Amino acid sequence: MKLPLGYRYSTTYAGLRKEHRDDLGLILSDQPASAAGVFTLNRVQAAPVRLAREHLRVTHGCARAILVNAGNANCATRTGKRTSLACCRALAKLLKLPTAQVLPASTGVIGVELDPNLIIGALPRLVEGLSQDRFTQVSHAILTTDRAPKAAFGEVPLGAGTIYIAGMTKGAGMIHPQMATTLGFVLTDAVISPLHLREALAVALERSYHRLSVDGDTSTNDTVLLLANGASGLEPSRNERKVFTEVLCWVMEDLAEKIARDGEGARKLVTIHVSGARSDQEAGQIARAISNSPLVKTAIAGSDPNWGRILSAGGNSGADFDPSKVDIFLQGVRVCRTGVAENFSERDLKRKLDSQECLICFVIRGKGKGQARFWTCDLTEDYVRINASYRT
Amino acid sequence: MKLPLGYRYSTTYAGLRKEHRDDLGLILSDQPASAAGVFTLNRVQAAPVRLAREHLRVTHGCARAILVNAGNANCATRTGKRTSLACCRALAKLLKLPTAQVLPASTGVIGVELDPNLIIGALPRLVEGLSQDRFTQVSHAILTTDRAPKAAFGEVPLGAGTIYIAGMTKGAGMIHPQMATTLGFVLTDAVISPLHLREALAVALERSYHRLSVDGDTSTNDTVLLLANGASGLEPSRNERKVFTEVLCWVMEDLAEKIARDGEGARKLVTIHVSGARSDQEAGQIARAISNSPLVKTAIAGSDPNWGRILSAGGNSGADFDPSKVDIFLQGVRVCRTGVAENFSERDLKRKLDSQECLICFVIRGKGKGQARFWTCDLTEDYVRINASYRT
Repeated sequence: MKLPLGYRYSTTYAGLRKEHRDDLGLILSDQPASAAGVFTLNRVQAAPVRLAREHLRVTHGCARAILVNAGNANCATRTGKRTSLACCRALAKLLKLPTAQVLPASTGVIGVELDPNLIIGALPRLVEGLSQDRFTQVSHAILTTDRAPKAAFGEVPLGAGTIYIAGMTKGAGMIHPQMATTLGFVLTDAVISPLHLREALAVALERSYHRLSVDGDTSTNDTVLLLANGASGLEPSRNERKVFTEVLCWVMEDLAEKIARDGEGARKLVTIHVSGARSDQEAGQIARAISNSPLVKTAIAGSDPNWGRILSAGGNSGADFDPSKVDIFLQGVRVCRTGVAENFSERDLKRKLDSQECLICFVIRGKGKGQARFWTCDLTEDYVRINASYRT
Repeated sequence: MKLPLGYRYSTTYAGLRKEHRDDLGLILSDQPASAAGVFTLNRVQAAPVRLAREHLRVTHGCARAILVNAGNANCATRTGKRTSLACCRALAKLLKLPTAQVLPASTGVIGVELDPNLIIGALPRLVEGLSQDRFTQVSHAILTTDRAPKAAFGEVPLGAGTIYIAGMTKGAGMIHPQMATTLGFVLTDAVISPLHLREALAVALERSYHRLSVDGDTSTNDTVLLLANGASGLEPSRNERKVFTEVLCWVMEDLAEKIARDGEGARKLVTIHVSGARSDQEAGQIARAISNSPLVKTAIAGSDPNWGRILSAGGNSGADFDPSKVDIFLQGVRVCRTGVAENFSERDLKRKLDSQECLICFVIRGKGKGQARFWTCDLTEDYVRINASYRT
């Protein structure tokens, strides 16, 4: 896995987490990078979300650094804005950058004051630790209840050489489609304008993070940032930009899938394909309703081929379709044909459903061309256990 | 608790459930009753739902009998319509009624063929068992994963005498607002036209079943029926109809609250009050988003005063409000003031949250007059356990 050129990484423990595990991360581009960001649509937005958006606006999409902490969301806090700004300022001073070229991001508990001195005091050793080899350490430092770090990589072959893309993300809970979800940082060494970068990000988000649900809740801190620092010296042509966007999609789909697979308490990645809807949008509605149904997700947890719940969830989506034209497949086995039960070996299918990958296909017969794919995970007792005792 | 005059009840075991427990119920009015019904908005609707709606249409709101079974939803079945009709016809023949005066309702597993002969064979002993004293038995026979029967009663004092109202319901899982949820049968001996009955039912639903969520899933079989057989000989005047509607609301609110309290796996009834929104509708959106948030509901399960999740869920509702004007109270203790943490004793509040009743107040300061109340329950590991193994 080759990383994009011109980025350095560092992490340290600032004392924000209770356990002694790195909770502060820095990604630094050696030169100013084109930058694009997408943020939570929650009415309640954390201070770093508002500040990062503001910084992107002020610089017209230019950044040098991403400063991220776990352990505290810095949301619904009295001093949130001041704290976030003070941390960016202190880092900018150390690195001799304009403050607005620092993009902040936070994740963790909501409503607890974040002491800026913990972060500011840790910045010198954070900067000192900067290295091209510490990408993985940052991908670890941003995790909360995640069980594993999540990274994805891509290469874009151009006529003149190769551009590299690398992404990291964190997920676990409070994850819902329809917006940039959780924290995601994607880096490339392409030469590309902020405008084209924003366009590529919008396309890739639509195919990745927006097609993902763990529990239907949307965080106050969701942030996806995409930097392109041009260190490769390679600028995709108009046609090559399509290839760039496609590879970006793969990288971000990979990240989104990893989030679903590592949903809080999840034992299974559930992929939902819907086809034959009147439009892609309606197919998306159906897929989303299925992926948000606790009854479907508990059935999958129990390896129960309870397709009635899948049909019912689709029926609750608001999309218009004829239930008597629906076929449902679980693990490739048809369990429902034209809206009614199909004969299948329940025992065999139960065994297939014990797999860590579950595939649900919801096929509407007819003329509709609408399709959608969604990722979610099963809903287990562990999800409840984790979330009933997150803070205390 | 005095029951309304002129109704008889019966139950029997038809063999639809695996365990030997009554699964077939009959409510019979001695004379034709005005009837109103509200049904699921799911695109997938069970055969009995469609047939009951059709019967109400054909008779212009007149019914003698409700025939209900548990153990099989008769939904997404090849022979669903035929089966449901055959059962209604057989009962009508036994009782010498027009078939359309029988309203069917079913609850249970989706997608498994229902053998009509099991029900038809049980009808003679069901009819034979009819008695004024078996209201409670019917309220038991309709239960599925419910832990307790749910009934509520009301009296309407009129100038000329007293009208009685009695309701029964079942709930447990697949429960979501925005429509008639689960099965609910409400009976009164008032003299009232089908039109006025429909109006009263619409008002009462808006204040009861529509303000209720267990898991955000809406069943394919949801049915609420209201019968008024006039056996009291008392017809409410125009003004008295308001009193009638008010008492009907209380009865149905009581039923809705009982459903929330007995949500699948629930240990706590959660009541959510929202005030200060721009409109009642927006207050309802906020209350609904909070009541549907798995993160809020798991926090309540763990007695964790995690108000950040409540604020965040409100922020996801789509309602427009300023988070910095929000106060949140848990069990009457202010935990968030103007959008940020308030000082409170976490230990004391944790103890208070161990109660079986949890009250969340979400107060938006300002000029808004919009209010809403919602009921839900906590989300526990038992919910997952029950639903991961419902069928198998």
